[in-house]
Amino acid sequence: MAYQKIITKGSQDKINPVLHQLKAIEFLKSSRNQKTKKASTKTKPSNRVGKNNPVPVRLALGQINAVVGDFKTNSRKIISAIKKARQGDADLIVFPELVVCGYPPEDLLLKENFLRANRDALESIVPNTQGITAIVGFTESDKTGIYNSAALIADGKLRGVYRKHLLPNYGVFDEKRYFREGRSLLRFVLNKAVFGITICEDIWESEGPGKSLCSEGQVDVLINISSSPFHIGKVRDRESMIRMRAKQYQCYLAYANLVGGQDELVFDGNSLIAAPDGSLIYHCQGFDEDVSLTDFWIGYPKSNGGKLEKPEGRATKTVKLGTRKESGKRADLFSADYTAESEIAEVQKALILGTRDYVLKNGFQKVLIGLSGGIDSALTAAIAVEALGPGNVIGVLMPSRYSSQGSIDDSLDLALNLGIETYTLPIEKAVKAYDTILKIPFKGTEPGIAEENLQARVRGNLLMALSNKNRWLVLTTGNKSEISVGYCTLYGDMAGGYAVIKDVPKTLVYELSRYYNNIKGSDVIPDNIMTKEPSAELRPDQKDSDSLPPYDVLDKILYHYVELDWDLTQLKTLGISKKTIERVIRLVDLNEYKRRQAPPGVKITPKAFGKDRRLPLTNGFR
Amino acid sequence: MAYQKIITKGSQDKINPVLHQLKAIEFLKSSRNQKTKKASTKTKPSNRVGKNNPVPVRLALGQINAVVGDFKTNSRKIISAIKKARQGDADLIVFPELVVCGYPPEDLLLKENFLRANRDALESIVPNTQGITAIVGFTESDKTGIYNSAALIADGKLRGVYRKHLLPNYGVFDEKRYFREGRSLLRFVLNKAVFGITICEDIWESEGPGKSLCSEGQVDVLINISSSPFHIGKVRDRESMIRMRAKQYQCYLAYANLVGGQDELVFDGNSLIAAPDGSLIYHCQGFDEDVSLTDFWIGYPKSNGGKLEKPEGRATKTVKLGTRKESGKRADLFSADYTAESEIAEVQKALILGTRDYVLKNGFQKVLIGLSGGIDSALTAAIAVEALGPGNVIGVLMPSRYSSQGSIDDSLDLALNLGIETYTLPIEKAVKAYDTILKIPFKGTEPGIAEENLQARVRGNLLMALSNKNRWLVLTTGNKSEISVGYCTLYGDMAGGYAVIKDVPKTLVYELSRYYNNIKGSDVIPDNIMTKEPSAELRPDQKDSDSLPPYDVLDKILYHYVELDWDLTQLKTLGISKKTIERVIRLVDLNEYKRRQAPPGVKITPKAFGKDRRLPLTNGFR
Repeated sequence: MAYQKIITKGSQDKINPVLHQLKAIEFLKSSRNQKTKKASTKTKPSNRVGKNNPVPVRLALGQINAVVGDFKTNSRKIISAIKKARQGDADLIVFPELVVCGYPPEDLLLKENFLRANRDALESIVPNTQGITAIVGFTESDKTGIYNSAALIADGKLRGVYRKHLLPNYGVFDEKRYFREGRSLLRFVLNKAVFGITICEDIWESEGPGKSLCSEGQVDVLINISSSPFHIGKVRDRESMIRMRAKQYQCYLAYANLVGGQDELVFDGNSLIAAPDGSLIYHCQGFDEDVSLTDFWIGYPKSNGGKLEKPEGRATKTVKLGTRKESGKRADLFSADYTAESEIAEVQKALILGTRDYVLKNGFQKVLIGLSGGIDSALTAAIAVEALGPGNVIGVLMPSRYSSQGSIDDSLDLALNLGIETYTLPIEKAVKAYDTILKIPFKGTEPGIAEENLQARVRGNLLMALSNKNRWLVLTTGNKSEISVGYCTLYGDMAGGYAVIKDVPKTLVYELSRYYNNIKGSDVIPDNIMTKEPSAELRPDQKDSDSLPPYDVLDKILYHYVELDWDLTQLKTLGISKKTIERVIRLVDLNEYKRRQAPPGVKITPKAFGKDRRLPLTNGFR
Repeated sequence: MAYQKIITKGSQDKINPVLHQLKAIEFLKSSRNQKTKKASTKTKPSNRVGKNNPVPVRLALGQINAVVGDFKTNSRKIISAIKKARQGDADLIVFPELVVCGYPPEDLLLKENFLRANRDALESIVPNTQGITAIVGFTESDKTGIYNSAALIADGKLRGVYRKHLLPNYGVFDEKRYFREGRSLLRFVLNKAVFGITICEDIWESEGPGKSLCSEGQVDVLINISSSPFHIGKVRDRESMIRMRAKQYQCYLAYANLVGGQDELVFDGNSLIAAPDGSLIYHCQGFDEDVSLTDFWIGYPKSNGGKLEKPEGRATKTVKLGTRKESGKRADLFSADYTAESEIAEVQKALILGTRDYVLKNGFQKVLIGLSGGIDSALTAAIAVEALGPGNVIGVLMPSRYSSQGSIDDSLDLALNLGIETYTLPIEKAVKAYDTILKIPFKGTEPGIAEENLQARVRGNLLMALSNKNRWLVLTTGNKSEISVGYCTLYGDMAGGYAVIKDVPKTLVYELSRYYNNIKGSDVIPDNIMTKEPSAELRPDQKDSDSLPPYDVLDKILYHYVELDWDLTQLKTLGISKKTIERVIRLVDLNEYKRRQAPPGVKITPKAFGKDRRLPLTNGFR
């Protein structure tokens, strides 16, 4: 057992509501299985905070948007946030999991120079912590392996490292591919209060390391640094888990989450601080950077119901530091005024942030979208405009002999409402050229899928030609319902760099479009587009309903089959005809090969196609 | 500790060289960390084989080609092999890892009905083991979790289950995503000899469960059931590991490996039996099904050098049972006549098997290949013909204004030599149609990448149109060198269902082509194609060398950067200009997005693109 006591400048005993200088740090590492009784006696600082001498903590949450592998940018952001926190007299600033290298770094972790760059970046951060304590997530590596770690840095020195115990290896996570499990706990004492460190998954299991760490009241403030991605319902699930843990472990819980888009994942931020009674002390805004200070007191007595009693005559304040946009919600001690956003608002924000970050972090500025006159391309264009501004979005109309005049007019109306530039490129000439070239091999056959797909592929080619010529990124417009059943053309409407709504079921596409028009206060997405019957317009009078069940029925089957992995016996309880169910699940299975070649897009459901759902292509299971 | 002794019909003591009926099975499960001394005394059957009473074992290796998820086919094959083994008087038949459900089942393992189907399939196999013992790999599940298990079945009853201890979670493997680790060991006694069971990874670590299992001579025959995929050099590495383990553990080692293609992986078979002195007793053929019997004796004395002494007057034999092709190599006891195939031959067989199985297991019969006149499409076509027969391969020539007459003639020569049908579809009309459509947006620009890619995409569209019309699968022809640096067109030459040589570097494409002509005894791939300078022929007089370093230089950099993860400092030691190296690795990094949308193809190197190398698309690391 390592035990260090570090005394730095300043008095140890003086209690000051705006105390900001590092007074004392004591470290205690204890093995996870060690008898807690023994540990607890050693943890307590000599004159630890008690009921009669409450101490203040001014804690900053460093909710920043890190870029995977971009150590320079990430370090700069971290150092800048530390500086601001110190200027705001914070005792402590807490950053997200693996913030130094971004999350998830995937197989970059197998590169020796990537690991070295992690160490170098951390070393460049350490000297910038004079007069403050910082918890920074980074990739630690030594001859025993690689660890997902939190560095405890204070007053220009690395004081300790905590290694994540519980490594998620399900859903989109592959942490056991890279990291070894940590075995030790880490507590430290700052200004007479005891802090404990955990990383993400460590507190999702109620019996996990957080429990040992906090047992018998050993910890006043439990810190959890996370990179926890968004899906519908996650924000609330996560918040309630954190509040429950704070209550269970009887301590404050300061939770710092990453924000930003990384390929298919969107990290939603929503960092927060919960009190030992489970109430919310502070809640950062979602889907944007937010570095804020919060004051709270440790050692207040509790009222009978277990509620913390509001202190008399001690003002509390929250200070916003350098957030990217105007400030978000603020919460006062014991009176959090944070109100949850609606789930639909969260999904919209996730789509916008995911799209913006994919485009900008990959060095693009402008995007290109094929406008069909349908609701999918309309919503995609609207999200792109929110993400990048109308000047960076180009709409392309590519009418064919089967396109209705309505489709063209509706697309032009949409573009006008969004304020985006358009090209109109009729595809007839190219379609005819293919007909001529394929005359002999197609002789005597009836027009069918081959001819329909060719039209979609001509459009894909035109978008890619404009993309290649101008370095504009093509955004595809397919929704989750059609991608599930393969109602889309590989190398056609699936051709592009980012698939904005690929994880959004068609019924939710409608909801999002209505929500969008609603917050805009006008029919930016024209009413015609909202109300027309969906059609791919690849043959005369084609309607989606010719090939697919109604979208509400389809989405119901897909939700249970794709996201919940229900089997046929279970699906039959949905009250939908067996024939329809069997056809849909057969289509989902058969079209895995198309999804494998699809561009990435924002994950918004608990189970998106991609890393979440890894099915074999060659699959004899029915 | 569970201890069972099961006596079945027949005398226990009689020793008979053609003994085939199950005499006695005793089980012993011991915890992995338990003191081995104690275990060893209990393991020994009352009158266990000793130096003076050697016993014969007739063991069958059930090297079959299972289809992932196709329980019906897999069970049928397993039952048929058991029947043949019993007819051949085998004591025991050993099947590969997860043979019941195929490997790797990936997220099918998250479906409850898939797990149920595993149990049902195993139950259908059990009654078919009257008079024989079988070891069958299957997915076991109970309320504690899912296990990668081996069933010990004998005389119509399930006698025991061993759960894999070491779960690989690197490279292409994700076993910790699905399985829990086993903790117990399993030994059983059959005809006075003690057998132990392990699964794949369990014996790759010398200090793994195989060691505890075999400690102090507790095991006479160690069984290992595997699904170990191919890459260059793996066959020899694996064989030498197995022979080394047999020597280290001082026992016979019977190794049953899966055979067949599954998406990107090819399982090469090459099952074998090694003796306690490390010599090879028997070696199944590679890249094909092989169910064979081998006799060997346990309890022979060793000569001074530790070599087993050849028994006097005891004939040995090997019987081949129902292999798909004519019989492979045979090996007699103490005199294995197996000679290793050359690595180039193995690569060719892997490409053929991988392609055949992807096409056939996915329900296709015919394939379609664009013939450019270059060596990549020539080799791809040759492999397709080997895999499927010339009647199932269609070549398509799609000349443009930049195609040389030589390219057309060479492609027609190749098709003639291979005996395949061709279409010739000039693309000029379609290219001109695009020029017309894009006249306004492209006004004032110089022809470049956009125009070049359009030609490749017209070709992709034509192949896909023929594919959609006829249900022929498109095989793409890109090699690993060009896919590494993005010298290929997304939705153009990358469009298709299976990418035969996507993991074959260009220099190896040449070697494979020479090897192919060599074994055919004629220039099936015309000499012109072998010797011409590589060109994409997308603009006048274009050569690959205009854009890329010579292929031997390129492949050297790629090998070290992609497969070995060398960094710039290390790469500089290769003696190649820094500028070239930096350009190449930058291209590799930038083109991850293309590879993400590429079709699957046969993995032949230790690190293929795909599951082997999971890099973020958004990646700021330089």
